[in-house]
Amino acid sequence: MAAEPDRTYDADPVFAMHRGGKIHVRPSVEVTDSAGLAMAYTPGVARVCSAIAERPELAAEYTWVSNTVAVVTDGTAVLGLGDIGPSAAMPVMEGKALLFKRFAGVDAVPVCLACTETDELVRVVTALAPSFGGINLEDISAPRCFEIEEKLRERLDIPVFHDDQHGTAIVTLAALRSAARVTGRRLGDLRVVVAGAGASGVAVSKILLSAGVGDIAVSDSKGLIYRGRDGLNPVKAELAAMTNRAGLQGSTESALRGADVFIGLSGGTVAEPALAGMADGAIVFVLSNPDPEVHPDVARAHAAVVATGRSDFPNQINNSLAFPGVFRGALDVRATDITEGMKLAAADAIAALVGEDASAEYVMPSQFDERVAPAVAAAVAAQARAEGVARRLYGTDAGNALPRK
Amino acid sequence: MAAEPDRTYDADPVFAMHRGGKIHVRPSVEVTDSAGLAMAYTPGVARVCSAIAERPELAAEYTWVSNTVAVVTDGTAVLGLGDIGPSAAMPVMEGKALLFKRFAGVDAVPVCLACTETDELVRVVTALAPSFGGINLEDISAPRCFEIEEKLRERLDIPVFHDDQHGTAIVTLAALRSAARVTGRRLGDLRVVVAGAGASGVAVSKILLSAGVGDIAVSDSKGLIYRGRDGLNPVKAELAAMTNRAGLQGSTESALRGADVFIGLSGGTVAEPALAGMADGAIVFVLSNPDPEVHPDVARAHAAVVATGRSDFPNQINNSLAFPGVFRGALDVRATDITEGMKLAAADAIAALVGEDASAEYVMPSQFDERVAPAVAAAVAAQARAEGVARRLYGTDAGNALPRK
Repeated sequence: MAAEPDRTYDADPVFAMHRGGKIHVRPSVEVTDSAGLAMAYTPGVARVCSAIAERPELAAEYTWVSNTVAVVTDGTAVLGLGDIGPSAAMPVMEGKALLFKRFAGVDAVPVCLACTETDELVRVVTALAPSFGGINLEDISAPRCFEIEEKLRERLDIPVFHDDQHGTAIVTLAALRSAARVTGRRLGDLRVVVAGAGASGVAVSKILLSAGVGDIAVSDSKGLIYRGRDGLNPVKAELAAMTNRAGLQGSTESALRGADVFIGLSGGTVAEPALAGMADGAIVFVLSNPDPEVHPDVARAHAAVVATGRSDFPNQINNSLAFPGVFRGALDVRATDITEGMKLAAADAIAALVGEDASAEYVMPSQFDERVAPAVAAAVAAQARAEGVARRLYGTDAGNALPRK
Repeated sequence: MAAEPDRTYDADPVFAMHRGGKIHVRPSVEVTDSAGLAMAYTPGVARVCSAIAERPELAAEYTWVSNTVAVVTDGTAVLGLGDIGPSAAMPVMEGKALLFKRFAGVDAVPVCLACTETDELVRVVTALAPSFGGINLEDISAPRCFEIEEKLRERLDIPVFHDDQHGTAIVTLAALRSAARVTGRRLGDLRVVVAGAGASGVAVSKILLSAGVGDIAVSDSKGLIYRGRDGLNPVKAELAAMTNRAGLQGSTESALRGADVFIGLSGGTVAEPALAGMADGAIVFVLSNPDPEVHPDVARAHAAVVATGRSDFPNQINNSLAFPGVFRGALDVRATDITEGMKLAAADAIAALVGEDASAEYVMPSQFDERVAPAVAAAVAAQARAEGVARRLYGTDAGNALPRK
C-alpha cells in the first residue's frame, strides 16, 4: 500500500501541472440550507423531472445537457503514440475538455472507453447519448473511426464529430485558403499531394475536394493511392475514385514533381529534393506532430508558404482553432448534425479572420485569437439554419446569444 | 424552429434554479499562451500519456479520475416517479453531482443511459470504468438493480455502490442506533418490521441484520415475506431465509402488533391503529418521499421516536448524509470495493456524531452538519485499510489528507 503520493515525475513541470487532473466539476447553484436542498434535490427536483418526462425538449432548458459534449476515445490512436489504451489517453481528453471550456464555454466530459470492437463502441456511445448535447470522437484508429462515426451519425440526433478527421480538415482548408491568397492562386488551380490516408488524410482530402481544389493525389505507407490498386479498404477505394485524376502510381515524392501543395499527415518524412521539384510558389504543410515530415526551415528554402502543427514555428495549424467553435455553434442552435457545409463554413470563417492580412508567415490566426471561436460558432450556426439541421434560432450571426455560467 | 428559450415553467423558482443545469466543468489549470498550451495539450501532454501507458497506476496521480464518480442511471426508478427514462432523470443526477462536490469535494458526472437490459447495462458501465474512480448507481429499478450491482462489483476494481440500496441502509441504521439509545434499548433486542422489499427495503433489512438487529419481518405489496411463499424472486427468497424467524404471514400491519420498530420504505401507507398496537417506546421511520406512510404527527402519538425523509419535520433521514463521505473515503484510499464493513462503519460514524446528545427529536445530524462527510470518509477509509481493500494509505483517521482544487 502506498503511503505517499507517487511524485516520481513531478520535477517535470508538465507532470506537476497535470497532478490531480486538469478539470473539475463545479456546481453552478449554491445550496446552503434545507430550503435550497429541497429545490435542487428532493422533493423539488421531481417537478423538473416530471416536466421533462412529459415534454422531452425541456431537457435542453432545465439540465446541463445542451451545453455538454462527450470527448470519447478508446485510446487506440492517441497523438503519435498509437494504441496506448483508454487510461493513458485521459490526459489528452482532459486537455480537450479544458480547451472546449476555455475557448467556447462548452462543458466537455472525457469518456475513455475500455472497448474497441466497432459495433460495441457504437452501442456504448448510443447508450450514453441522452447525457450529452454532442459527441466529439477522438484518437480512434483508422479505418474503424470512419465506420464508428458513420453509424453514430445515423443513429443519433445530436452532432457527432471525429475531430482527428474533421477538425484537422477544417483548419487545413482554412490555412490553404490563406496560403493560396498569399501565392496568388485559386483553389481550383491547385494540384495537391497529401501524404497519409488515415483519419486526417482522408478527411483533409475530402474537404479540399468539397472546397473545389483542382486535383489531389493521396498516398499511404504503400505509395500513391490509385483506382484499382490491390487491397484498398473501402475508405481508400472511395478516395481512389475521387482523387488522382492522372492515375499516378509510385511514391509520394514522385507525385511532388510540379505539384503546388504538399500536405504531410503521415507521421513519416519527405526528402528535400522532392520539395525542390515542386512548382514555383509551392505551399508545404508538414503537420505531423511532434516531428514534422521535414524541418520547416528546410521546407522554407523550396516553398513560398510553410506551416506546421507546432507552436514554435510560424503558421501553426492546430485543431483547437476549430472544434471549440464548431461545437459552440452546433449546440447554440441544437443542430442534429455537423454537415459538410458546416465544416466548410467553419474553415471559411477562420480564413476570413486572416483575410487580406495573409502573408507567408501569417496564414492562420493565433491559437489565442479570441475572435476565432465566436466567428466559427456563428458561421456554423448560420449554416445549420440554412441547411435545416438547426432546432432553434439562437446563435445569431453575432455569435452565441445565450448567457453562460 | 424555436426563436426563444422555452420559459414556460420559469415562474416556478425550482425551474428557474434548474435553467441551464446545476453543474459545469471547470478547468483547474489556466492556459493563457502557447507555452501553457504546449504543456496542457500537445506536445507536452504526450509525456504524461506515455508515463501512464508504462505505469497504469499513475493515472490516479496525473488525471482527474481518482477524484471522480459516475452517477449512473437508466431512469427506470426515479424518485417516486418510476420509469421516466434517462433524459428526465438528469435533474436528479445533476443534484447528486452537486451534493458530491458540495459535501465531499468529489467530481461527479451524471451518466443517464438509454439502455435497460441488465447485461447490456453492465457492459456499458464496464466500458466506461477507466474514466472514473467509482460508480454510483442510482434510481435503477428492482430487482434488476441487484444483479447489475453484483455483476459490476465482480468485474470492476473500483467501488460500485447502488445508493438507493446502501445509502438508504447506512442512514437508516445510523438513525436506528440513535433511536435505540434514546429509548434505552440495544439493537439485538429489537423486533423490526420493514414495509417494502425494493432496493431500499432489501438493503436496509440486510444491514440491520449485519448490525445485529434481533428479528426483522419484511413485507412487499403482497404482504409479509416468509420462507416458502409462492413466486418469490431470488432476492426476496434470500431475504425470506434471513428474516421473519416466527414465519409470520399476512399483512404488514398484522406484524406490527408488539413490534419495536416500523420502517416504511414502501411508497404506501400504514394505518394508525396498527401503530397504536406497537410496543411501548416504539420507533417509527416513515421514509417514503414525498409522502410518508403516515403523517409524522399521527405517528408521534404512538411512538417515542419518529423520523421521515423530509426536511420539514424533525429527524430527516436522507442519503445525502452518506454517499458523499462514503465515496470520499473510498477514493482517498483508492479502495477496490465498498464492503459491508465499510457501510457499517459509515453508519456508526454518523450515529457517533449524534452520540449522547440523541433525543426524540435528534436522532440524525443535520444535512448541513459539516462534520458528517469527513467523519464518514475517515471511518470508511480506515475500514477499507483494515479489510485490505485499500490501495494506499491516504485518508488518515483525521480525514482526507489530500488537498483538493
